[in-house]
Amino acid sequence: MKTIKIGQFGFGCVGEGLFDIVTDQKKNLPIAYQKICIRDINKSRKAPLEILTDNPKDLFEDVEINLIVELINDADHAFKIVSTAIRKGIPVVSANKKMIAIYYGEIQKLIAEYKTPFLYEGAVCGAIPILQTLENYYQFDKISKVEGIFNGTTNYILTKQFEEKIPFNLALKDAQAKGFAEVDPTSDIDGLDPKYKLKILLAHSFGLDVPVDQIFATGIRNISQNDISYAKNKGLKYRLISKIIKHENQVCALVCPILVKESDLAYKIDHENNYVSITAEYTGKQLLYGKGAGSHPTGIAVFSDITGVINGLSYTKSIDSNLSFTNEVFIEILISAQNLKLLDNVKFNEAYQVYESQGYFYKTGKVSINSLLSTVTDDLFIGLINNKVEFEKGEELLLV
Amino acid sequence: MKTIKIGQFGFGCVGEGLFDIVTDQKKNLPIAYQKICIRDINKSRKAPLEILTDNPKDLFEDVEINLIVELINDADHAFKIVSTAIRKGIPVVSANKKMIAIYYGEIQKLIAEYKTPFLYEGAVCGAIPILQTLENYYQFDKISKVEGIFNGTTNYILTKQFEEKIPFNLALKDAQAKGFAEVDPTSDIDGLDPKYKLKILLAHSFGLDVPVDQIFATGIRNISQNDISYAKNKGLKYRLISKIIKHENQVCALVCPILVKESDLAYKIDHENNYVSITAEYTGKQLLYGKGAGSHPTGIAVFSDITGVINGLSYTKSIDSNLSFTNEVFIEILISAQNLKLLDNVKFNEAYQVYESQGYFYKTGKVSINSLLSTVTDDLFIGLINNKVEFEKGEELLLV
Repeated sequence: MKTIKIGQFGFGCVGEGLFDIVTDQKKNLPIAYQKICIRDINKSRKAPLEILTDNPKDLFEDVEINLIVELINDADHAFKIVSTAIRKGIPVVSANKKMIAIYYGEIQKLIAEYKTPFLYEGAVCGAIPILQTLENYYQFDKISKVEGIFNGTTNYILTKQFEEKIPFNLALKDAQAKGFAEVDPTSDIDGLDPKYKLKILLAHSFGLDVPVDQIFATGIRNISQNDISYAKNKGLKYRLISKIIKHENQVCALVCPILVKESDLAYKIDHENNYVSITAEYTGKQLLYGKGAGSHPTGIAVFSDITGVINGLSYTKSIDSNLSFTNEVFIEILISAQNLKLLDNVKFNEAYQVYESQGYFYKTGKVSINSLLSTVTDDLFIGLINNKVEFEKGEELLLV
Repeated sequence: MKTIKIGQFGFGCVGEGLFDIVTDQKKNLPIAYQKICIRDINKSRKAPLEILTDNPKDLFEDVEINLIVELINDADHAFKIVSTAIRKGIPVVSANKKMIAIYYGEIQKLIAEYKTPFLYEGAVCGAIPILQTLENYYQFDKISKVEGIFNGTTNYILTKQFEEKIPFNLALKDAQAKGFAEVDPTSDIDGLDPKYKLKILLAHSFGLDVPVDQIFATGIRNISQNDISYAKNKGLKYRLISKIIKHENQVCALVCPILVKESDLAYKIDHENNYVSITAEYTGKQLLYGKGAGSHPTGIAVFSDITGVINGLSYTKSIDSNLSFTNEVFIEILISAQNLKLLDNVKFNEAYQVYESQGYFYKTGKVSINSLLSTVTDDLFIGLINNKVEFEKGEELLLV
């Protein structure tokens, strides 16, 4: 077997984790680092100085490099790297969920044209081998639902708030101190990170290429200790859930906090852990649980892609036109804010209740996802009060 | 792509499930049944009469057949079928855990000699893609523990006993009526079925070929309603757990009922569901949950193997001589029987307590697996009272 000579972009949390694994696996596989491109060449790194560079050209002009690994933060730069590699026919692996979600269509076109292998297991739920499993197992089944906790940072914060009764801001600081949350936590706490993963899973499980701005996602930025303790007193917990549901030939999706009860599996998923469950006709319900983020857990996913590329793997799930994506579905939610006026931002189809508790105003009712999509949610907390989705035709689906 | 022409042995529960899936997937893949070999040619079947035969030769002499699927019950006959296919160079897929466990070494030799693809995902935990995941993901990690519920029948019985307070015999009859348990339920209720799966996982996760008679396995045949309600009153449940644990270069394994508490994930795994959890250095703890048996769930696993064979997949995990299997480990158990004398069958290293409750005698204490292996357990119930394993050197491992 030809030696795999890696050209890697980025040496942050996942990049360093991958470096450990590659170093460890050198004895088992013909694999080595050829060059690593980083932004700040003066920062001290684990990798030997002679393979470091801050010039991307050094990688693309090195004819020895036969695999590109893209592990930087910026989505636009990441796309430039990945598209250059695809055009040059150099197999490429990435863990950049934002880039893959946003540039999904363009990447598909490039792959179709250049036939270059491109894998990205590390982009969806860290160590959980969800894309492989969908690829190898679920192409022959009829998936009706994909659901899970796709963000470790917010799950860690919710666990802290629930267990230690500390307010959101302190729980976030703790998550940042532990390295789970970024300095700018927006992508996690506003539900963008799980939205990107949901978009990728819409493609891999239902063959749909849905623009990210058509997916409703809200996070936990505005969750108050009042919300947490109110739920806790009722034996419930909030979990930031992501889900995709198919009904006949329509598919809907959303990212939203939801109240779960002790008998729900999601109730048991604490700290930075993630899970993905898949419901399908033949397989029934399956669930994969594991570390959704982190240096080594995500590093293993990326390493698995590297060996996948060596073994000639590529994703075969194609965009399927039989299904259509819809936001014309109805869900039952509660919203809360300290300013009563803000509750009017949400246009309910049916309002159930308005009440006040400990300085917070609450409203419950039924609303369409379409209507939520046009709502400014910056100052509001939105939570699902149950796991039901009602499709336009008035058929109610009770989802477990 | 060349059309896959299947020669299938057996048309029971899984065989029929696979038939449904193949029929369904014909529009997506060049795949078709060429012949199906069954024991009773006169029994009415879903498959068209013209492809049925009761003569195995009809399949092996049909030059059109380019894939053999083995789905019969008898392990020795199954081995004959699989070994003939391997020798003839016809790729083969099987779901026969007993055959693979018992003939593991011989099969490995045949594969090494004839280089014929042989896959068997359906043999371990039905729909759960555990072998694929170990193959694609865990070759590059350092596994320290594999644990789970590997038998749906006994889990269904234990759930029934716990929830509906019905005795073992009635719960077993219910499981038989629902098609979960065989007419002769020995393999399930005595822990043989999960032992075969454990043996296969010892090979795929730790590279060990351990003779099945060296693996201690006990089931739930002798569990009394007294055991169930005693546990329930303490907030506990019994689950038939299978586990493999590595400590330094030693590996131990066992199948045994265990008391689990509400905060344990196993507590939530009810009815015919299975799970497998894998703990490894880089990946941390992952868990796969799903239907451990059944016509379509296992059928999907077999179908996934068929497409795996088409794509040139083969298992690459080899027998690793760095590790050694040991039964010189100590566990803490309780034993119970209606006859006090039977309790003397188990040679405890350290006895904790002897007591009587509702006509049953109990004894708790510490015992080595080696000692249990030489114990006649036909009339005894044996249960782990915690999830600890103590290796010989006196180092105690607390396992979560």
